[in-house]
Amino acid sequence: MLVFGIHCHQPIGNFDYVFEEAYIKAYKPFIDFFYEHEDFKFSAHFSGILLEWFLKNKKDFIKKLNDMVQRNQLEIIGGGYYEPILASISKEDRILQIEKLNHFCQEVFGKKPRGIWLTERIWDTSVLQTIIELSMEYIIIDDYHIVSAGYPFEEGFYFTEDEGKKVNLVPIDKRLRYKIPFAEPQSVIDFIKSQKTSIIIDDGEKFGIWPYTYKTVYEEKWLERFYELLKKENIDTKTISEALEVSSKKLVYPASISYEEMGQWALNYEDAIDYEKAKEHCKDFEKFIKGGIWKNFFTKYRESNYMHKRMLEVSKKSSNKDSILKAQCNDAYWHGIFGGIYFPHLRREIWNNIIKADFDNSYYELIKEDIDFDGKLEVKLKNKGFIIVVSEDGIVKEISKKGIGNLNVCLSRYKEFYHFINKHQEKEEVKTIHELKKDISKYKDMIAYDEKTRFFSYDDISWELVDTKEDKIAFQKAKNKKIIKLQDDKFILEYNLEDTTPVDINLGIHSLNIEAYEIDTNHIKFEAFEIGKIELKFSKSLNLKVYPIKTVSQSEKDFDVINQGVCISFLAGGELSVEISC
Amino acid sequence: MLVFGIHCHQPIGNFDYVFEEAYIKAYKPFIDFFYEHEDFKFSAHFSGILLEWFLKNKKDFIKKLNDMVQRNQLEIIGGGYYEPILASISKEDRILQIEKLNHFCQEVFGKKPRGIWLTERIWDTSVLQTIIELSMEYIIIDDYHIVSAGYPFEEGFYFTEDEGKKVNLVPIDKRLRYKIPFAEPQSVIDFIKSQKTSIIIDDGEKFGIWPYTYKTVYEEKWLERFYELLKKENIDTKTISEALEVSSKKLVYPASISYEEMGQWALNYEDAIDYEKAKEHCKDFEKFIKGGIWKNFFTKYRESNYMHKRMLEVSKKSSNKDSILKAQCNDAYWHGIFGGIYFPHLRREIWNNIIKADFDNSYYELIKEDIDFDGKLEVKLKNKGFIIVVSEDGIVKEISKKGIGNLNVCLSRYKEFYHFINKHQEKEEVKTIHELKKDISKYKDMIAYDEKTRFFSYDDISWELVDTKEDKIAFQKAKNKKIIKLQDDKFILEYNLEDTTPVDINLGIHSLNIEAYEIDTNHIKFEAFEIGKIELKFSKSLNLKVYPIKTVSQSEKDFDVINQGVCISFLAGGELSVEISC
Repeated sequence: MLVFGIHCHQPIGNFDYVFEEAYIKAYKPFIDFFYEHEDFKFSAHFSGILLEWFLKNKKDFIKKLNDMVQRNQLEIIGGGYYEPILASISKEDRILQIEKLNHFCQEVFGKKPRGIWLTERIWDTSVLQTIIELSMEYIIIDDYHIVSAGYPFEEGFYFTEDEGKKVNLVPIDKRLRYKIPFAEPQSVIDFIKSQKTSIIIDDGEKFGIWPYTYKTVYEEKWLERFYELLKKENIDTKTISEALEVSSKKLVYPASISYEEMGQWALNYEDAIDYEKAKEHCKDFEKFIKGGIWKNFFTKYRESNYMHKRMLEVSKKSSNKDSILKAQCNDAYWHGIFGGIYFPHLRREIWNNIIKADFDNSYYELIKEDIDFDGKLEVKLKNKGFIIVVSEDGIVKEISKKGIGNLNVCLSRYKEFYHFINKHQEKEEVKTIHELKKDISKYKDMIAYDEKTRFFSYDDISWELVDTKEDKIAFQKAKNKKIIKLQDDKFILEYNLEDTTPVDINLGIHSLNIEAYEIDTNHIKFEAFEIGKIELKFSKSLNLKVYPIKTVSQSEKDFDVINQGVCISFLAGGELSVEISC
Repeated sequence: MLVFGIHCHQPIGNFDYVFEEAYIKAYKPFIDFFYEHEDFKFSAHFSGILLEWFLKNKKDFIKKLNDMVQRNQLEIIGGGYYEPILASISKEDRILQIEKLNHFCQEVFGKKPRGIWLTERIWDTSVLQTIIELSMEYIIIDDYHIVSAGYPFEEGFYFTEDEGKKVNLVPIDKRLRYKIPFAEPQSVIDFIKSQKTSIIIDDGEKFGIWPYTYKTVYEEKWLERFYELLKKENIDTKTISEALEVSSKKLVYPASISYEEMGQWALNYEDAIDYEKAKEHCKDFEKFIKGGIWKNFFTKYRESNYMHKRMLEVSKKSSNKDSILKAQCNDAYWHGIFGGIYFPHLRREIWNNIIKADFDNSYYELIKEDIDFDGKLEVKLKNKGFIIVVSEDGIVKEISKKGIGNLNVCLSRYKEFYHFINKHQEKEEVKTIHELKKDISKYKDMIAYDEKTRFFSYDDISWELVDTKEDKIAFQKAKNKKIIKLQDDKFILEYNLEDTTPVDINLGIHSLNIEAYEIDTNHIKFEAFEIGKIELKFSKSLNLKVYPIKTVSQSEKDFDVINQGVCISFLAGGELSVEISC
């Protein structure tokens, strides 16, 4: 028996042309093909983001899906509406996310989903408990969750319990994940025939928009040949719920991990390099080689942590829940083989939703607490126009403007394990995205690293917070003074220094393709679609060093060089004020 | 700074002489020593079981502890009262367990504990959430939890969050766990001096009753020399709460695991053998070598699972919560280097509490559900005198008697990884319990394995359940019949068979030291303190094979050969009834 499913998702904030391309090259031809082959039963998960897009732009597609649902060919799988990592959000929000997708499916397809697509398969007891509470019947996990718990894995279905309450588990077979659609159909069929129950639920994007797959799957007719062989060999296909009904299930307690590859990505870069070596050296003991956990991305990327903690803060306060649920879309919080956190447009969209919900909550705020959980206090001020967050030692961590969003969606330049190794150079025959040949050497000159986190602005002085009012924050260090003033339409950095200190101001502009330059001036102005006009006026003329912050990150095909923002660097000394308006 | 603590615990149901020996050789001399050295600040956790025993038997000891608490030399650490694995019990029970110990400490020492000793350091989000909800301030974990998450470990304190709520983490340093009290005091002191903050909270039993430690610690004065060197080197000691107050803490998300050794123990035996090899082969990549999770003991030892699921069942139904909380004491549910599940007296005490709570709940019950979560239904009957649980395919999984307990506390003879390897033969110089030389070869002849789980009784027929009444359960298979009858003072197995089938009846008698024998008889009787008198009357004379079920399990020092029970094996054919009374 083959239990086949696809999971389809596009992150919130992704470009419309990416949705369109994925639709044309992957989602549409896949569904079109099986629309004509009614005897192939399967299951599919679409994130709410995609379903909304289909409903708005591709009504025919929704109708086809609906026909397939009504004739019991297709089972729609549930999950978090905006594809959040369910373990990283509050229980209240988890319930809202799952129920929102359930409700959508009930409305559009007339059926409430019975099971859960677990985003990035991040297993955690908190998630298990919520899913059981909502009476969902199954959760899709990996074989790796079972093997890692200490259980000798056999293919097929499982179940687990919490406080004596049961839920079924549908483990994806990694071997099939690497074979489909990369190995010859006949060898996939042979593998399926060797098992009683084969379970594969994998990215729908594999069928058309992963590198080279449109050619394989459609031009070289992989999908058609696979389907014909299934028929020829009389291999039964079932939806997940149909298969669960007729299958025995074994009790297991999954480990709180994700799939194997995620374990490496979640490690800090040095460990990730070692992990690569470990997998090579310890091939015979692969089942014991395990990396880090997803939540370590919050300690690995400080921008992910900051965004996450601000999301949690606003989630507790704001009544605009839908913006918060959108701000939980997972992609921009981490990075593996896809761009993820390296894509500024994805982070910007998360921020836009956080800022919207924050302003919808209240117009004035003056709080002093450890907002980003770095062990130090922050001061947060909010007025009609701006939100500003400054750490107790003087780092301006955030300046966000109503209607515009966070002015600083920069990502610091981090060391990544793949900057230091060329992966799988010799394996020419394979072609999953985890095994493609990539050559970092041609990007070497473009790689640089930041020591400080690229928050909005910082200098070299460890300030002490001396006063906080609703329109200004004052710092002192010996005889040096720094005051941050907030008005409805601008904010001002005022320095009064005995000596000089270098200052960086990082703007989240990634659409302007500038080269590094120097200029002596008392004002500078940028205009870009992300943040509109922004102008810096200095109380005296200064030498400004202006340069783009560019990162080199891996993608599913190769490497991306991405403008994260623009840095304006200068030396502050004596009395200096910088007025920033936008 | 040195943050030093001990954790002391004896399982519920342990022999009084074991408590006494641990007290005389470990707890008392340790506390006596530091009672005289007021400047040594430390923290201590005692399970509620031990504290109750001290209060009843060693009032002086409690007074000394109290004096040390009042003079702020000693901080008492909280936890689950009966030392349960907090992740394996319901949230309601978790709260009761923690609050019961808090309440006890408040009463006896006038102070509520501020932190949590996490039993066997089994980390899980559900546990984290409860601890945060109860406003406890810290949790003791291992460095391994942090390293495994993907974080580059540095000594010192951490904190984590759930839904934005924080709790401090106190990670035990494994290097100190292996050095104290095994390495020379000077080398331990040198190590402590090399760190800013050294944290070690470890078993109090290490100081006196672990193999050879009484000699080292007291006769050879390890403890005194260690203390003198601390003074000489001006190393500051602090209680956990004192140290937390003055220390910085870093955000981290611990992995849902335990300490490294537990990962191996939780694996099935074949994987545990491989794990041993993996640790050897992959020494340079040790940080990635990880075993299974604690809950896998429920799939590894079916008796642990059965006991756990019955405990969960009764916990939901019974108002006798204290018996249920006692039945959650962890030791008898698993096995590592200590006897654990292999000790019948520990399992018996758990069962006594489950059965007591079950009878306190109601006298009559007839339910049909999958009680032990093996995927098959069971029928549970209860009358004034007995509880009987029979699977839908005819296995009598449990017969328990009011006031006596479970008549079958046998453990099946499982394959264990240490049956197949001799551990650490060459490391003569070290002597922690994980490194002691043990020679399994002299036990080889005593090792046997069971194919079937040693439940109360089973035969070779896959029965079909045909009828269930409150006093009988009827099975059929082709023309064969089996009826199980339950009366207030006895129960009867009735066979009507076309052919013959071998039957095993396993009695939980471990105190009778019998040799295997055969006898032709129509009745057989045993008397043992665990279950009193038990008599089997057959409707005709049969050839009975009677033999002890002996297991060979590792202990902290060597191996234990333990009587798990007595099996009465015979061939049932034609019409046969077996009346069992006790």
